[in-house]
Amino acid sequence: MRVRNKPWAKDKIEQNPQYVVANPEDHRGKWSEIFGNDNPIHIEVGTGKGRFVTEMAKANPDVNYLGIELFESVIVTALDRIIEEELTNVKLLNVNAKDLKEYFTKGDVDRVYLNFSDPWPKTRHAKRRLTYKSFLKIYEDILVDGGEIHFKTDNQGLFEYSLTSFSEYGLLLTYVSLDLHKSDYEGNIMTEYEEKFSAKGQRIYRSEARYQNK
Amino acid sequence: MRVRNKPWAKDKIEQNPQYVVANPEDHRGKWSEIFGNDNPIHIEVGTGKGRFVTEMAKANPDVNYLGIELFESVIVTALDRIIEEELTNVKLLNVNAKDLKEYFTKGDVDRVYLNFSDPWPKTRHAKRRLTYKSFLKIYEDILVDGGEIHFKTDNQGLFEYSLTSFSEYGLLLTYVSLDLHKSDYEGNIMTEYEEKFSAKGQRIYRSEARYQNK
Ligand SMILES: C[S@@+](CC[C@H](N)C(=O)[O-])C[C@H]1O[C@@H](n2cnc3c(N)ncnc32)[C@H](O)[C@@H]1O
Ligand SMILES: C[S@@+](CC[C@H](N)C(=O)[O-])C[C@H]1O[C@@H](n2cnc3c(N)ncnc32)[C@H](O)[C@@H]1O
Repeated sequence: MRVRNKPWAKDKIEQNPQYVVANPEDHRGKWSEIFGNDNPIHIEVGTGKGRFVTEMAKANPDVNYLGIELFESVIVTALDRIIEEELTNVKLLNVNAKDLKEYFTKGDVDRVYLNFSDPWPKTRHAKRRLTYKSFLKIYEDILVDGGEIHFKTDNQGLFEYSLTSFSEYGLLLTYVSLDLHKSDYEGNIMTEYEEKFSAKGQRIYRSEARYQNK
Repeated sequence: MRVRNKPWAKDKIEQNPQYVVANPEDHRGKWSEIFGNDNPIHIEVGTGKGRFVTEMAKANPDVNYLGIELFESVIVTALDRIIEEELTNVKLLNVNAKDLKEYFTKGDVDRVYLNFSDPWPKTRHAKRRLTYKSFLKIYEDILVDGGEIHFKTDNQGLFEYSLTSFSEYGLLLTYVSLDLHKSDYEGNIMTEYEEKFSAKGQRIYRSEARYQNK
């Protein structure tokens, strides 16, 4: 994602701590407090501009969403959406995915979404892929038992890699689509990247994988 | 595969019992005798006209190949290839895959190849797919521990189904290619169906999956 320099983004984020959660480490183990209900919590890691989490939040009022995004310059667009649409079941975390265990304890999260994660195509960068085993361990450590990872990408190499990475980690592959937009999958909500790549005629790949009791 | 009526095929097969093994049940647990060496045995289930097994046999003289095919009318073409090329490390079995345990005992087989298996697209026919769990159980019961299934197909639905079927059975997915002919996979040997479908511009999918010690 191209990161534009937006000096005002940081201010705007700090001025909206009810949407871009300030001090997320304070909510570890008690995220339901912040939402005011016990609904399941689904996180999207690498939310970008937030189309997916906000549309999902509208479509599924009984689920709480948290969009995790490193860059202020893109998360600020997600923030605008939430403010404009007055959504109460979606919030944002301006943090790095590698630190998720500082903000969540085992069982805090019911599902992880990964959408169009950076592909890091070079083998020597495999460790940076959000489906690398060290990240699968982090998700396991914050998910409920039997929690799931739902993954979409247009990137063939990343999808091939991720299927074997899931399997090698011990995850159960429960769903695979090799051409989502031509499949009978219902209720798909497109992300910004998905709109862009599918408009270019790229196939979209999608999988669901479940942690198994050990 | 279109099955032409070839009344002479049965005779030809019976006249060549050294190539299309007669009474395969007699060799259960002692297939090395028939090849005259202890080399690993790789079987292709649904061999068709035999291009794959015969070319693999030429490329890998230290492996013994067995092509399993139900229909006399197609296996007879595979037989012609073996006779013409005087190959000693490939033989054929004119039997049904569902009966493989009558011909092989645990550990007789080192690898299973499935190439362009009939897709059986209707859900109610899922049990007929050669990657359905009952077939995965049969392969497990005749393979060595840690034995592998190498699978190729042009059929998107069958590939999607098979990846989840492998995973749900407990197989480890060690390799996935979503466009084999554009990948860096080396030494690919094309089957008859592969030549036909790739000439039409169809993608070829390929996976490797390994049985795990239980
Ligand atoms: C290619 S974009 C996709 C954005 C969005 N999911 C979509 O589909 O349109 C990947 C996003 O992941 C974010 N990202 C990458 N690594 C991250 C990390 N370790 N922690 C948080 N966000 C990360 C990037 O900043 C970027 O916004
Ligand atoms: C679509 S063709 C593919 C042939 C070849 N593998 C190729 O790639 O060109 C599938 C073959 O599997 C054979 N076959 C299907 N079910 C079988 C079974 N249960 N046992 C043995 N052969 C079977 C069919 O007769 C047919 O020749």
